[in-house]
Amino acid sequence: MATIPPKVIIGVMGGGSASAEAVEKAYRLGKLIAARGWVLLNGGRRAGIMEASARGASEDGGLTVGVLPDDNRRHQSPHIQIPILTGMGSARNYVNVLSSDVVVACPGGAGTISEVSLALKHGRPVVLLDFDLGAIFPAYVESGQLQWVATPEEAVAAVEAFLKLAS
Amino acid sequence: MATIPPKVIIGVMGGGSASAEAVEKAYRLGKLIAARGWVLLNGGRRAGIMEASARGASEDGGLTVGVLPDDNRRHQSPHIQIPILTGMGSARNYVNVLSSDVVVACPGGAGTISEVSLALKHGRPVVLLDFDLGAIFPAYVESGQLQWVATPEEAVAAVEAFLKLAS
Amino acid sequence: MATIPPKVIIGVMGGGSASAEAVEKAYRLGKLIAARGWVLLNGGRRAGIMEASARGASEDGGLTVGVLPDDNRRHQSPHIQIPILTGMGSARNYVNVLSSDVVVACPGGAGTISEVSLALKHGRPVVLLDFDLGAIFPAYVESGQLQWVATPEEAVAAVEAFLKLAS
Amino acid sequence: MATIPPKVIIGVMGGGSASAEAVEKAYRLGKLIAARGWVLLNGGRRAGIMEASARGASEDGGLTVGVLPDDNRRHQSPHIQIPILTGMGSARNYVNVLSSDVVVACPGGAGTISEVSLALKHGRPVVLLDFDLGAIFPAYVESGQLQWVATPEEAVAAVEAFLKLAS
Repeated sequence: MATIPPKVIIGVMGGGSASAEAVEKAYRLGKLIAARGWVLLNGGRRAGIMEASARGASEDGGLTVGVLPDDNRRHQSPHIQIPILTGMGSARNYVNVLSSDVVVACPGGAGTISEVSLALKHGRPVVLLDFDLGAIFPAYVESGQLQWVATPEEAVAAVEAFLKLAS
Repeated sequence: MATIPPKVIIGVMGGGSASAEAVEKAYRLGKLIAARGWVLLNGGRRAGIMEASARGASEDGGLTVGVLPDDNRRHQSPHIQIPILTGMGSARNYVNVLSSDVVVACPGGAGTISEVSLALKHGRPVVLLDFDLGAIFPAYVESGQLQWVATPEEAVAAVEAFLKLAS
Repeated sequence: MATIPPKVIIGVMGGGSASAEAVEKAYRLGKLIAARGWVLLNGGRRAGIMEASARGASEDGGLTVGVLPDDNRRHQSPHIQIPILTGMGSARNYVNVLSSDVVVACPGGAGTISEVSLALKHGRPVVLLDFDLGAIFPAYVESGQLQWVATPEEAVAAVEAFLKLAS
Repeated sequence: MATIPPKVIIGVMGGGSASAEAVEKAYRLGKLIAARGWVLLNGGRRAGIMEASARGASEDGGLTVGVLPDDNRRHQSPHIQIPILTGMGSARNYVNVLSSDVVVACPGGAGTISEVSLALKHGRPVVLLDFDLGAIFPAYVESGQLQWVATPEEAVAAVEAFLKLAS
């Protein structure tokens, strides 16, 4: 049998606590990622944007990878099929962004901002979904590496454009 | 649709260079892991035990995760479907073993021995496949956490016994 | 002989490339840190804010620790006395901030912003020295964990106030 | 004032629990390291070989660096002057060995064996102090990178020989 080709991996970042609207958008984003056959990668915990995006993808048959800060599965979302236990706390944020072909950042706090920063520094395209950070990264906005969108549908369209550029 | 449950993850460790016999056994081990529906996780590179085990699993429709030391895909095996780029060199060995329900260690050098050590320290069962290290870990042999087998078929039987114990 | 007590460690973050004015301020900051008997910790490379702050401290007899992204000393500043080689790329940013009693952030790019973010998330006080990021962290400005100053002298005064609070 | 040159860093590894004899040897080793003006680097905790070696060095005016697995100072030895908080669990073992010019390994368990393995893999000379692991690393014994000694005095002589080779 022919070997299965590497999959496209889309990172979804965002807060462990989030507004109902942000959670709803993350859930829909997860569904759209699954529909395209992409792997959804996130921080893996049973909370906020992580839980919502994994649930959306997993319910529709999508593959979900969670890169956890923990060395055990206690806080793992049940919608994560492949938990990567790093035992490295927030150092795992670096792994999250390196492993993503494109990063979609939903609203979050300082942890999410660290992931956007690391993604930009290491050349990953970033789509901000209803999350306004453009003002602190003007050079990346200008180069097009950092984009802002309002809806999950627009986020997925932006991801597709980035993937086309890279292929 | 119902969400997909978390998968069983079997770590396969071993040298970046390996004898023809060890490579052949790793390849067969990969096939047996795929046949059981387990995810195969290894170091992800296009070399030695990593390449052989990923090829075996991937050719038979198994899912393969590679936790790479690199921050890019240059050395990635084409048989890895989900590359986790850590950019952390050998610090990723810790991630490999934490993320594995059971570790199977094929012949390797100092890097593989570090993975066996870390797996034992952090409570992961370890099956040594034709790789003789028992003498330095007598307490783990006695407790049963560390076992030695000669063939891929025996390795998979040992893995199954460990999984039964844990469930 | 009595044992030597743990030292106060001040992290100095900032860009690998920086304006002449920012470099001059980082150099003066290094001198002020050395004068107070604090250890200066930074990213350890021979570039920008790292080089300038280490040079300032080291020339005045201060102790300097560099937490490098590299697994070797090729890019190490000659003004770093204790190089910690992490081999972990930007994952070392997490180590930088956890190890600092207080973080002073000089102007920098996405890497520096990731360090400010991680420091705030993990409870470390942050002094922004002539580096304007306040708008994205309003809650931390309000709580007082994040402060903005214009000069190295003011930065050191802010550090002293934070250290008094913690003792 | 002239800048202070980089210091020689000697890593001392070993178990968190250890026999009275091993603890006594680690304590004497710490004193000998301090007497030569080298920095002692270890795992930083208040236990076993870590505590003993740091106490020996620190009591005699030596500088001690502890690379801790933790993200806080709760388990830190009071004899560590410069705690590096990694928050990375056993992934910090990699940092320990990369940062050491020479590694001295005292008796320990699986964690210590992982450090010896990583040190050898990444080119660091290793002196085994009364700790018998030679049989699993025959190639490194033959090349001279791995040596066995019985006393702290012999360990320091072996370290000096390695440092001369490297300079």
